[in-house]
Amino acid sequence: MKLTILGCHSATPRTNTNPTSQVLEIKNNMFLIDCGEGTQVELRRNKIKFSRIKHIFISHLHGDHYFGLVGLVNTFSLLTRETELHIYAPKGLKEVITLQMKLSSSWTNYPLIFHELSSKVSQLIYEDEKVEVHTIPLKHRIYTNGFLFKEKENERKLDINLVNEANIDKAYFRKLKQGFDVENEDGVLIANEKVTKDPLPAKSYAFCSDTVYNEEIIPIIKDCTVLYHESTFLDKNEDLCVPTKHSTARQAATIAKKANVETLILGHYSTRYNGYEEFKNEAQTVFEHTVLAKDGKVFNFD
Amino acid sequence: MKLTILGCHSATPRTNTNPTSQVLEIKNNMFLIDCGEGTQVELRRNKIKFSRIKHIFISHLHGDHYFGLVGLVNTFSLLTRETELHIYAPKGLKEVITLQMKLSSSWTNYPLIFHELSSKVSQLIYEDEKVEVHTIPLKHRIYTNGFLFKEKENERKLDINLVNEANIDKAYFRKLKQGFDVENEDGVLIANEKVTKDPLPAKSYAFCSDTVYNEEIIPIIKDCTVLYHESTFLDKNEDLCVPTKHSTARQAATIAKKANVETLILGHYSTRYNGYEEFKNEAQTVFEHTVLAKDGKVFNFD
Repeated sequence: MKLTILGCHSATPRTNTNPTSQVLEIKNNMFLIDCGEGTQVELRRNKIKFSRIKHIFISHLHGDHYFGLVGLVNTFSLLTRETELHIYAPKGLKEVITLQMKLSSSWTNYPLIFHELSSKVSQLIYEDEKVEVHTIPLKHRIYTNGFLFKEKENERKLDINLVNEANIDKAYFRKLKQGFDVENEDGVLIANEKVTKDPLPAKSYAFCSDTVYNEEIIPIIKDCTVLYHESTFLDKNEDLCVPTKHSTARQAATIAKKANVETLILGHYSTRYNGYEEFKNEAQTVFEHTVLAKDGKVFNFD
Repeated sequence: MKLTILGCHSATPRTNTNPTSQVLEIKNNMFLIDCGEGTQVELRRNKIKFSRIKHIFISHLHGDHYFGLVGLVNTFSLLTRETELHIYAPKGLKEVITLQMKLSSSWTNYPLIFHELSSKVSQLIYEDEKVEVHTIPLKHRIYTNGFLFKEKENERKLDINLVNEANIDKAYFRKLKQGFDVENEDGVLIANEKVTKDPLPAKSYAFCSDTVYNEEIIPIIKDCTVLYHESTFLDKNEDLCVPTKHSTARQAATIAKKANVETLILGHYSTRYNGYEEFKNEAQTVFEHTVLAKDGKVFNFD
């Protein structure tokens, strides 16, 4: 599981900072999460192949989270993409994109599939053999979802020497990987744990931006491997959290602690601050394993 | 008259090149012309004060000419702008911007005034004491206008020594600047040219992007000081001009020559080429005074 931060700043793109966008690589998927203005350039800069992006998740329709999307959709067309593209976003985005396509008298030459979101409870919105994606309803000024990306339980690993010694036919390997006991060639029942090893633990990534402090998300993100939680403000500006519906670094850390996550990544910093170490310092008074997002930073969680 | 090229490449923003956008400073106006994705960052990079931009001209609704606009309009709001903003653009843009505002539950805190264009003949769309702006109907795949920015005739310059010697009262200075002969304090008629000098010639700038080769624009841009004309292709790809409705550098130069302009600026280069000197070379076989646009380049025409 690998996370590339394309942008992690709030409000507006600036000369040296980008609005929210990130790429999560998980079980051979490249998921693009949010798409602020300039995302396509950051994808190029970070050498992420456009063709590998098949699913884009948009948290909400504030510009710093999606103004780069129509350009990306358009660029995919100019590059003669053929692979289908799925966009998971709040209701309304489809209208924005289709209106702009209509005005330019063009349409994509690849299938563009919108999955419009409007539910206020957590939903399973994507599933393949190895991964599930669920929404995390957040509390912000407009309808907003975070996203929980979960690896499915990995299969048990065969110890091929022990399997051969136990004289088990190949036909049973699949059942062994699934955790079943099987009969060997001599009709003897072989206990699964004698010939297999525990699988790698399934990993999960929760993306929560933008939101006011909200304990209701804790059951959804409980025990996840990595939590990205917005920290727009430092303690000294905590009074701004309620009117703007954002969080402080300390509040993000409190959620991380209560949800028992392994690692907390902070981001969505307000442009009022110079430098971000103070976000980490304030968060670490509550939750030690806190790291800072930074544009262009790659987190490897394998 | 000063022109800053923020971006002059076609199709998509890339790591080192920007789509179309430029700022024309003329008689104390800062006119933003087209607004591809990333324009607000380029404005910052070129240290152009956001508050000085009061009029934005959008040629057409292909993404590489306007996808940066909604972000700029939004950023102006975040920066608590109060000055009114006028946008001159093809019909449809207002719907795009207002839809996106509606979806983000916000509106600008400054007056945002759309001037929607749909006429197929040249129109006067802006006028103040010193400048006029006219549309230049272009032929492209969708409805497109270029823009002609014209200084009004400057006033004649008083030679204050000669004026005093001629014993003319201050009350007549205005009439002298306007070119009239006036009576002096002794009742003698003073010929205007005896006490005034010719004004600086009025300058003009014609922006023509995107368009197929089209001689119909020549009467509109005739004798203008500077012509920016798109040159998407080199001669070797001239066959692409008709289907895509773009021009070669040589065609741009032919228009410049026939319109008797002083300077031709080339831009809107296709991303298929490496380096742009060949555009200049091909154009200069037809029109000597050709220069190349380049992102970040400033042309001073005073």
